Amino acid sequence: MEKKTYAPGILQYIPFFYVIWSDDLVSASEINVVEKAIETDESLTKEEKEQLKSWLNVEQPPANEEFKNWKQTISNSNIKLIESETYPLSTFSQKIVCAYFDTCPFNDSLKHIEINLGIQPNHYNHLFNVEVQHELTSDFYDANEIDSILKGKYSKTIDAFRDAVKDPIFKWDIHRNKEDFRTVVLKQVQFLAEKGYGAMAYPKEYGGTGDMEGYATIFENMMYVDGSLTIKFGVQFGLFGGSIQKLGTKKHHDKYLKKTGTTALLGCFAMTETGHGSNVRGIKTTATYDKDSDTIVIHTPGTNDNKEYIGNALHSKMASVFAKLIVDGKNEGVHAILVPLRDEAHELLPGVRVEDNGYKLGLNGVDNGKIWFDQVRVPRENLLNKYGDINEDGHYHSDIKNPNKRFFTMLGTLVGGRICVARAGLGGAKMALAIAIKHALKRRQFNDSIKIQEDLLMDYPSHQLRLTPLVASAYVYQITLDKVMKVYCDDSKSDKRMVETQVAGLKSIITWYANDTIQECREACGGKGYLIENRIADLKGDVDIFTTFEGDNNVLLQLAAKGVLSNFKSEFNSAGFSSVLKLLGTQLTDKLATINPVYSNKVDKEHLYNPKFHKHAFDHRTRRLTYTLAMRIRSYVKKGIPSYQAFLKVQTHLLALGKAYSVQLAYEAFTEFTEQISDNKNRDLFRKLGTLYALYEIRKDASWYLEQGYLGSTKSKAIRQRVERLSTELRPHIEILVDGFGIPEHCMSAPIAH
Amino acid sequence: MEKKTYAPGILQYIPFFYVIWSDDLVSASEINVVEKAIETDESLTKEEKEQLKSWLNVEQPPANEEFKNWKQTISNSNIKLIESETYPLSTFSQKIVCAYFDTCPFNDSLKHIEINLGIQPNHYNHLFNVEVQHELTSDFYDANEIDSILKGKYSKTIDAFRDAVKDPIFKWDIHRNKEDFRTVVLKQVQFLAEKGYGAMAYPKEYGGTGDMEGYATIFENMMYVDGSLTIKFGVQFGLFGGSIQKLGTKKHHDKYLKKTGTTALLGCFAMTETGHGSNVRGIKTTATYDKDSDTIVIHTPGTNDNKEYIGNALHSKMASVFAKLIVDGKNEGVHAILVPLRDEAHELLPGVRVEDNGYKLGLNGVDNGKIWFDQVRVPRENLLNKYGDINEDGHYHSDIKNPNKRFFTMLGTLVGGRICVARAGLGGAKMALAIAIKHALKRRQFNDSIKIQEDLLMDYPSHQLRLTPLVASAYVYQITLDKVMKVYCDDSKSDKRMVETQVAGLKSIITWYANDTIQECREACGGKGYLIENRIADLKGDVDIFTTFEGDNNVLLQLAAKGVLSNFKSEFNSAGFSSVLKLLGTQLTDKLATINPVYSNKVDKEHLYNPKFHKHAFDHRTRRLTYTLAMRIRSYVKKGIPSYQAFLKVQTHLLALGKAYSVQLAYEAFTEFTEQISDNKNRDLFRKLGTLYALYEIRKDASWYLEQGYLGSTKSKAIRQRVERLSTELRPHIEILVDGFGIPEHCMSAPIAH
Repeated sequence: MEKKTYAPGILQYIPFFYVIWSDDLVSASEINVVEKAIETDESLTKEEKEQLKSWLNVEQPPANEEFKNWKQTISNSNIKLIESETYPLSTFSQKIVCAYFDTCPFNDSLKHIEINLGIQPNHYNHLFNVEVQHELTSDFYDANEIDSILKGKYSKTIDAFRDAVKDPIFKWDIHRNKEDFRTVVLKQVQFLAEKGYGAMAYPKEYGGTGDMEGYATIFENMMYVDGSLTIKFGVQFGLFGGSIQKLGTKKHHDKYLKKTGTTALLGCFAMTETGHGSNVRGIKTTATYDKDSDTIVIHTPGTNDNKEYIGNALHSKMASVFAKLIVDGKNEGVHAILVPLRDEAHELLPGVRVEDNGYKLGLNGVDNGKIWFDQVRVPRENLLNKYGDINEDGHYHSDIKNPNKRFFTMLGTLVGGRICVARAGLGGAKMALAIAIKHALKRRQFNDSIKIQEDLLMDYPSHQLRLTPLVASAYVYQITLDKVMKVYCDDSKSDKRMVETQVAGLKSIITWYANDTIQECREACGGKGYLIENRIADLKGDVDIFTTFEGDNNVLLQLAAKGVLSNFKSEFNSAGFSSVLKLLGTQLTDKLATINPVYSNKVDKEHLYNPKFHKHAFDHRTRRLTYTLAMRIRSYVKKGIPSYQAFLKVQTHLLALGKAYSVQLAYEAFTEFTEQISDNKNRDLFRKLGTLYALYEIRKDASWYLEQGYLGSTKSKAIRQRVERLSTELRPHIEILVDGFGIPEHCMSAPIAH
Repeated sequence: MEKKTYAPGILQYIPFFYVIWSDDLVSASEINVVEKAIETDESLTKEEKEQLKSWLNVEQPPANEEFKNWKQTISNSNIKLIESETYPLSTFSQKIVCAYFDTCPFNDSLKHIEINLGIQPNHYNHLFNVEVQHELTSDFYDANEIDSILKGKYSKTIDAFRDAVKDPIFKWDIHRNKEDFRTVVLKQVQFLAEKGYGAMAYPKEYGGTGDMEGYATIFENMMYVDGSLTIKFGVQFGLFGGSIQKLGTKKHHDKYLKKTGTTALLGCFAMTETGHGSNVRGIKTTATYDKDSDTIVIHTPGTNDNKEYIGNALHSKMASVFAKLIVDGKNEGVHAILVPLRDEAHELLPGVRVEDNGYKLGLNGVDNGKIWFDQVRVPRENLLNKYGDINEDGHYHSDIKNPNKRFFTMLGTLVGGRICVARAGLGGAKMALAIAIKHALKRRQFNDSIKIQEDLLMDYPSHQLRLTPLVASAYVYQITLDKVMKVYCDDSKSDKRMVETQVAGLKSIITWYANDTIQECREACGGKGYLIENRIADLKGDVDIFTTFEGDNNVLLQLAAKGVLSNFKSEFNSAGFSSVLKLLGTQLTDKLATINPVYSNKVDKEHLYNPKFHKHAFDHRTRRLTYTLAMRIRSYVKKGIPSYQAFLKVQTHLLALGKAYSVQLAYEAFTEFTEQISDNKNRDLFRKLGTLYALYEIRKDASWYLEQGYLGSTKSKAIRQRVERLSTELRPHIEILVDGFGIPEHCMSAPIAH
């Protein structure tokens, strides 16, 4: 077979054409980039331009013979592609020209294509003779810069905390015996309290800095040390201390808050009962006011009405007990009362019974237990009385007359805990991702028979696809949780209903995301991921319960969906409901008008990567689900079906809406943040992460979008391909991306991560 | 408001119309059932028939006023619906007529509707005043009958085994210390060996019954006792013993097999190396034949070439070591050699080093370890020489000349282990489902404000949807694994390639299913599911690794897909490949011709529940994926891209095909089985389970079917609704369905299951 030769002008483009045509993604907009470059390339003759352009016809791609000839020409040059070059492919092309001819000027048009098409080593490293990579990752981005962007204004707080956990007391180890483990964790909690971290969210006068947002950031970072530490810390300072701070008044703050922050007083948060998990309103423990003795009698009435899963139950001296407050024989609804559990000698007080919950799937360093009360009397002032009080004369009083509203106001003060749980889940996911990705950048498995080295796990497209979108999601969720905590802490807004709805949804999708991610990382590390020493196993066990505690995810998602339904009304009633319906109906019709067949089949990169498209898709889904949900409920209600039963009938619809709403929220928070990043380079990276997240999420619900006619087949397929493509494009930066999480080196104890 | 009254003829139908119209699923075929019943109802006048039929118009449903009036009429009758009646709704209707009029004959037309529409308590128990259910489950089906169907010809074997594990030695307990746990598990293994279970799959002359199929069934049942027991048992008898039985010859059988079956000889299966997990062909341990001493020298050449995760490593006296056999300086490929590890005093022999793998996420009762060999010499006869031998004169000989084929033949003999792993995963899933469902039939949470009792978890539609399809899948997968093991054991078929492909795919989808199911059950049990005492936590930790060991699922799925591609050729080469392509092309074109818009939007129940539709859908997906995959690879190969790289480019496509193929296989095995069930009642139940499985699986891939135009929007939505509907219809039988798994009462130690 005679070898066809190419003129230098043509030759320099051949490696590019070879890459483009061996890839599945030759889109109109990409061809446009190449065409423009050729058009403006002054080194080319008119004939050469024509020749090159003729190879850009999607309808009539270059013949296979031509393609083989390109390959032959490249391979006969014996030139190696050096990945560490600034423009590896352009330089490679230039060198090939040098190999065949005398001259070889560097051509800026090629550089232009390389940059604009985002051609990455992964697009060609199976095609060419690539110089063995010494760097597993590109140094184009800087992990410290990324970490700084993520830390934002909490840089100092976070850095100091990461430094604090360098103390040998935090050295990770395998603990199989729960008593020993709990002792270690208690010491760690006390150590952090001494450093001031316990009181952090409390006012200055009680040893803190009033910094709830900072508290949330260190809470996430604590997961890098250990899950049990994080949860016990959260119980002591966030739940027990938080209930005193938020439900109590000055007398309680003065008496208990400082001691709580220093761990001089260890306490627990006794809300959940065996029989009434997520249904807090249904708890049965009673707190009956006895006027004669001016005391409140705490009592567990029956089997399964005991408190359960109460963290810190074995170490605590006191509990913040949630019970139905009965005054003058009237049930005033759920209130919290401080109840001493043990004396100075740590002996249980009369009438109090505590049982260890025993071993759990994870968090065995947390002393969860069951608590029973048998007519335990406490002084009247132990009632945390911010929202409801018993007067001197023995009568109940509250500024919030509506018992329903009172209940939700009290519970609303605890929403911060839910944000922290999501935050901790995210920390766990980040840690697992960092370990799995560092392992995949070291571990080799299988190879081409002609290569000596096996391929890196991270170079497998399937491995990129299973991990990269999860990394992108971690970025999106951190920014989202930062934002929602900021809104929650904004005291200028007293109505917290909106943020409660948001947190209910976000806590659910993020803790599920965390579990799925940790599981994917476990499997991605094979047998090594199964060994406790590599940390993922513990993360899996610890984070698992996050989907259930602080509100079961399925219950919370329904709460979020109901919040969306009643967004514009302060209370969900049938009058308000129909006006919501009307409003939704109008808006939806307006929006739907924009979906036409051209839009639903638009597949060019500019469109698919455009945040406007993503936002439109998410918005469309949320609105459409809200509208159809409202219509279904209305039709049931019209038929006389009680609303409780109507809601049961639409339960799966509610869950879908709750998720859709939360994804939309997260993406919007992230894009808002991204646009504020000042330097172009990092902003572009964050945009790419946002795009990957958006397309990945749209892809998950592709069947719905297709059913609705919002996506056409071609567009749906194009989105799938773009998710794969973006995952591959981020391959050179994947290590920087997980380093950007800023997990301290001393916490990365997993042997496989080194 | 004046009350509208109805004549008796009309009135008797009103509860039915009320149920039908308050449900979302009024389809043409259902209306047809009601119309027919009315038509043939001789108790009705012509006018009454007209009136009733006018309420069956989907285009113009009954007015809301009419609907409310029905409700009022029913409710004013003060009649309670008694669930335990044979035909609850028909009887209820009859009684309402009695309440308003003097006569009330039982009407068979109503019964006809009740049966044919499959109206179940769940369709009306929120609508009417239902007599409090004392029975949580219907007694229409019999758990023992179902269990018998599942046990099939292994009834005796399984019953005897379930009886054997009643011994107190198998009493489940929490084990935190691995040494103690391993001691317990070892004793359990020895106990089972004494009873003959260890040798079960070996020939009679070595203490067995040659019953590999029976072995697989008890293997699944062993999971009800404990995961560590199951795996250690499998290592000793299935892997170590299996390698002697299948790779060795008579001299090895005579010397070792009986001792292995009785545990007089404890052994391990040393295949996996730290550096070469799923790439068995890439293992580095060498077995070099030294002619002078007539011995084989076993050696671990470098770092990461040690054996790892080897079960039984700490208790074993001997290992079946997989190593590259080098004879006359030539690498003859991977072979297994028996290598003594320890002496009678259990001291390690010279040159052997063993390290404990330490604590793991689960299976801590199995002593996994790492093993290094430093020039360890064993006699030549220790080579397991069935497929390759070293002659007396020191030369290598094998009947299988092609080293590739030899390798796969040896590995193929171990495919039984993969079936057993899937089987064990399934056992774990069944156990978790039984616990979660029994809990959901006891646990109440939230309620209607007017009801005193909270609702049972199992009565929530979302709970039904999350668990019921998983129960159906368990039935499908058990039947499938029974069948594939039967084919594997059929000695009349010597070419095991097809069954290997099938097992690779099935092991992957079933172990993933098992993990997802156990996780869903954990969450469905809330905090209780997190406690070790409730067993799900351990199942989660134990079953997790099943996705990775005996072949990583992602690797196996690619193997399955490649098997599908080369289905018609004994070896995958480019000549064979193009003929496969051609064949696939033709068949696909034929098949595709049948998909037309009417088909892709057919939504009647008869069609959606028809196995022909399910099979067609699965077949279409497998063929289409195969065809497009083959086309993509061919186009890459034509372009001169080496096949290794071409396969990398289509990796995600391969995974999709592997899954699709496996689902199709499972469904076909199940329907084949179902049609052989002799009694109608149980056959109908199994058909329903098969339908739920099929629709659930089609639903999972709905985006693909929609993209392909195979499903239209309406049909896709109808499938989703049918999955929910079937999950609800099975609610009354859900306890019987999990009881049908036959998990012995003494193994159901989880407190929440009682």
